[in-house]
Amino acid sequence: MNKIVLIVAGGSGTRMNSETPKQFMLLQNRPVLMHTLSVFYHYNRDMEFILALPESQAEKWNELCKTHDFGLRHQVVSGGETRFHTVKKNIAGLPNNSLVAIHDGVRPLVSLDTIDRCFRVAAEFGNAVPCIEIPETLRRLSGKRSRQVNRTKYRLIQTPQIFLADILKEAYNQDYRSDFTDDAGVVENLGHAIHLVQGNGENIKITYPQDLVVAGALLKNY
Amino acid sequence: MNKIVLIVAGGSGTRMNSETPKQFMLLQNRPVLMHTLSVFYHYNRDMEFILALPESQAEKWNELCKTHDFGLRHQVVSGGETRFHTVKKNIAGLPNNSLVAIHDGVRPLVSLDTIDRCFRVAAEFGNAVPCIEIPETLRRLSGKRSRQVNRTKYRLIQTPQIFLADILKEAYNQDYRSDFTDDAGVVENLGHAIHLVQGNGENIKITYPQDLVVAGALLKNY
Repeated sequence: MNKIVLIVAGGSGTRMNSETPKQFMLLQNRPVLMHTLSVFYHYNRDMEFILALPESQAEKWNELCKTHDFGLRHQVVSGGETRFHTVKKNIAGLPNNSLVAIHDGVRPLVSLDTIDRCFRVAAEFGNAVPCIEIPETLRRLSGKRSRQVNRTKYRLIQTPQIFLADILKEAYNQDYRSDFTDDAGVVENLGHAIHLVQGNGENIKITYPQDLVVAGALLKNY
Repeated sequence: MNKIVLIVAGGSGTRMNSETPKQFMLLQNRPVLMHTLSVFYHYNRDMEFILALPESQAEKWNELCKTHDFGLRHQVVSGGETRFHTVKKNIAGLPNNSLVAIHDGVRPLVSLDTIDRCFRVAAEFGNAVPCIEIPETLRRLSGKRSRQVNRTKYRLIQTPQIFLADILKEAYNQDYRSDFTDDAGVVENLGHAIHLVQGNGENIKITYPQDLVVAGALLKNY
């Protein structure tokens, strides 16, 4: 089946207290986004690579690619108002009978094994979403109080989230809702069961300055 | 009010694939546990410091203290069969009208602010437990399926968990249950409302080898 990777990089630098969008920040002297693209390229260089960036960042990305001599083939497309709109807009033209992996641009530490597990399960069941167990005690808020819940019943969700293109397109025809925090939620809302797959703990999302420190250390250790 | 810190360090090196218990592993050339004790000492050197270690590790700890010239005053006590039994056994003799902070030995990155917030809230309400928001989409398993839940309604729980000694002692008079994964759960089971306080994201629990890498990087950045 045809494989497509859509890397979504819509972030600004707000939560990083920086002018530089987090996906352009340097990790071992290369922008985060180049690490992310490279992992998928190492997994399978024959896939179709699509990178969704805010229009205002396209020129800067071009410059960065030149500066860092980044030659991995990929198509740059523009993002929408929210992550939902970015995905909706950029999957519309994809061939139905393909597998589309949607991945956060700021998750450069996804492992080749995670990617492989997701593609295999998605090929069999129509979708696959990586997750990890909850490492801490978990509590649920309820009004001003909270109560402990059984953490073994919960999972933290990562990306890549992989779907058959036709299901994904149908799901994204739904109206936008603010509680659609990932693609699995959108597809699930259509009535599809989501297939969870083991992710890798290092696959953190770079959001805050401390995350960049952590990612740098993990990358060095890989 | 009298302040007591009970640091619980019962781990072996199993999940670290190592012979060395994780609390003795080196972080910037010092055992993890020395970093942990130092933070509390920096917060308030006049507190009472109790360190619960498996009996088999006491001698090694003594040696490490000599090797690393570690002079912070603390009392070493022996642990029990589980964390529950370790706490139960070592709080029994503490003065009732004191605040007892129970902290994981393998959380060396707790911030002074987190400790301070917890002691202040516990002094007012009888208990305080630090928590952080959930950074990822969260799903709840249900049989072979799962469904997205509202992550803003959940919190990941850390330590130090601080309690009035008399409440804590009463709580630990209950029979052991395997779902008592932290002290808050034990106290809550007695009918007390738990008071959540903002923790700090760096305050990770060192469990797997990658955690040691992450902690090292965060420590360097502190």
